[in-house]
Amino acid sequence: MSVAQGSSHSAGPTIGVFDSGFGGLTVLRALVARLPHAQYAFIGDTARLPYGSKSRRTIARYAVESAQFLVGEQGAEFLVIACNTASALALDAIQEAVPVPVLGVIEPGAATARAASHSSDVLVIATDATVQSHAYAAACKAVGLRALEKSCPLLVPLVEEGWTGPRAFPAAVPDFTAVETASAAPQEAVTDQVFRIYLDELLRAATDQGMKPDTLVLGCTHYPLLRPLIERAVPAGMRVIDSAEAAAEAAVRLINHRAQGATDEGERTTAIKCFATDSVEKFERLGSRFLGQPVGHVGLVDLGG
Amino acid sequence: MSVAQGSSHSAGPTIGVFDSGFGGLTVLRALVARLPHAQYAFIGDTARLPYGSKSRRTIARYAVESAQFLVGEQGAEFLVIACNTASALALDAIQEAVPVPVLGVIEPGAATARAASHSSDVLVIATDATVQSHAYAAACKAVGLRALEKSCPLLVPLVEEGWTGPRAFPAAVPDFTAVETASAAPQEAVTDQVFRIYLDELLRAATDQGMKPDTLVLGCTHYPLLRPLIERAVPAGMRVIDSAEAAAEAAVRLINHRAQGATDEGERTTAIKCFATDSVEKFERLGSRFLGQPVGHVGLVDLGG
Repeated sequence: MSVAQGSSHSAGPTIGVFDSGFGGLTVLRALVARLPHAQYAFIGDTARLPYGSKSRRTIARYAVESAQFLVGEQGAEFLVIACNTASALALDAIQEAVPVPVLGVIEPGAATARAASHSSDVLVIATDATVQSHAYAAACKAVGLRALEKSCPLLVPLVEEGWTGPRAFPAAVPDFTAVETASAAPQEAVTDQVFRIYLDELLRAATDQGMKPDTLVLGCTHYPLLRPLIERAVPAGMRVIDSAEAAAEAAVRLINHRAQGATDEGERTTAIKCFATDSVEKFERLGSRFLGQPVGHVGLVDLGG
Repeated sequence: MSVAQGSSHSAGPTIGVFDSGFGGLTVLRALVARLPHAQYAFIGDTARLPYGSKSRRTIARYAVESAQFLVGEQGAEFLVIACNTASALALDAIQEAVPVPVLGVIEPGAATARAASHSSDVLVIATDATVQSHAYAAACKAVGLRALEKSCPLLVPLVEEGWTGPRAFPAAVPDFTAVETASAAPQEAVTDQVFRIYLDELLRAATDQGMKPDTLVLGCTHYPLLRPLIERAVPAGMRVIDSAEAAAEAAVRLINHRAQGATDEGERTTAIKCFATDSVEKFERLGSRFLGQPVGHVGLVDLGG
C-alpha cells in the first residue's frame, strides 16, 4: 500500500489528497515534486464517480466522508481537494467537517492565471460538470479576470485511453516508459485534432465576445498529461496554467507556513499510500501515468453507500 | 412525460425498457419501429451509472429496483434489459424478481451473429465493462461462434458529443435534423479515425489468432448511432450486427407469441414515457438522437441509495 523511496522513516507532515477518481494524482505528483519529504495519503472515491452528475448535497456528503477518512484514519494534517467538482461544490462543507486546513484547486488556478495574464481575459477548459458550476468564472471574476469556460468531454477519455502524445512527465521507471511509448502516431494525431477543434471553438467564441485571451487554464486534473500537446496548439504567447501545479504551489506555501522547519531535515523519505473505493485494478493500471511513478498497491476502502 | 403519436388511446401491450443510462433508447427506437401500437415505459438509472465499475451484487440490486419500478408502477408486461452490463451480470436476478418475461441484449446479438456468419468467427466491440464480463464471448460460444472482443472506450463519449458523422436515423423532426447536421466535417473525421484505429487493432489481433471474422457485433447501445460510419470502415463483405436491433427482434417475437392478435387493430397510438434517476436535462438533450424522435418530458424517479 505504500511506496517508500529510500529506507529511513519519514517524519515530514502528512498530507491528505482527495479526488473522486485518480486524476488528482497529478496534484499529488506536483506536491511530491515540491515536498519530497512528506507523507501522503490519497483517496479516489472511484465507487461513486462521476461526481459531476450528482447534487451539491450528495457531493458534499461523499467528499466529507473521504476527508474524514484521510484525517481520522490516515492522520492527515493538511487536505488538498484535488477534484474540481468537489472544490466547486463542497469546499465549505469539508472545511467545516475536519479540523485541518483544506485547499481546493480552483482558487489557486485563478490566482495563478491572475499573475500570468496581461489582458485580464482568460480561457478555461474543464469537464462539463466543472463548467456548469461556473466555479472558475466566479474565482476569476473575484481576482479581476474575465473568464470564458468550455467543457471538453473527450479529453478525459482520451487521456484514460493513453492517447496522450509525447510523454508529459519524465520516465522514472521502465514500466512507465513502456506505457507511454505505446501511444503511437495515429492515436496522438486524434487527440491533437480533438484539442484543436475545441480550441478553435473556444477562440472563436472569445473573439465573438470581444475578448483578447492570453492565458489558458487547465481546469481538470486529467489535462496535465496533455500539456505538451496543448502548448504546441495554443496561439504563440498564450500562457498555459495547470491548476494541479497551482494547487500544489498554494499547498506548499500553506504547509511551509504552518510547519516551519519541518522539512528538508536529513534523510527522510517520501511515503505515498493510495486508496480507492472501487476499481482498484484500473487505478493501479492507469494511476502511474498520472503520478509519474508507480502507485504501488492501492487499498480498497468502503465508505458506505 | 408521454409522447403520444395520434389521438386515440392505446390498448397495446406495455413494454418496459431499462438501461443504466439513455443509450438503451436505441433499443426502444428499434422496438417502436416494429411495434408502433404498444405502450412503452423507459427508465435510465442515470444517478448510479456507470454500472461497469460496480460489483455484480450492486448491479443486480440496482437493476432489480428499476425492473420493479417498470413492472410495479408502470404496469410493464414485458421487460427488455437494454443495457449490456446489466444483461451480462443481472439478467437472472431480474428474471427472479419480476413476474413478467425479461429479455437482455446479449443472447439476441449472439443469435443474430450466428445466423449471419459463415466463417463462425465474429468480432465484438463494446465498452470496457462488457468486454471484461466476456458475456458476448460466452453467448457466442454457446451458439458455436468464436468471438474476439475489444473495448472501444472513446466511442461512447464521441457519440455523446454528437460527433457521429452522417445521420444514423431518418430525421423525424426538425429539431433532430438541426442536432445532427451540427456535426461538421472535422468532428466526423475524428470519429472515423478513432473507429479505424480500434478496427485495425481488432483485425490484426484476429489475424494473429488465425481467425477469419466475417461479422462485427455492436455490443453497446450507443454504437447504432455510428453504424453508417462503421459500415463504411469495415472490410468488404463484413456483416454488421446491431445488438439493439437484434434484441428488438427477439422481443417482438416473444411479445407476438404471448399477445397474439393484440397488435395492429385499428387506430391505436405509440405512447412513450421516459424516466431517469438523475441528469434529466442531459437525458432530454441527448436522448432524441438515440430514440430518433423527441423524448419529450423525462420524469425524475428516486430509487433510493
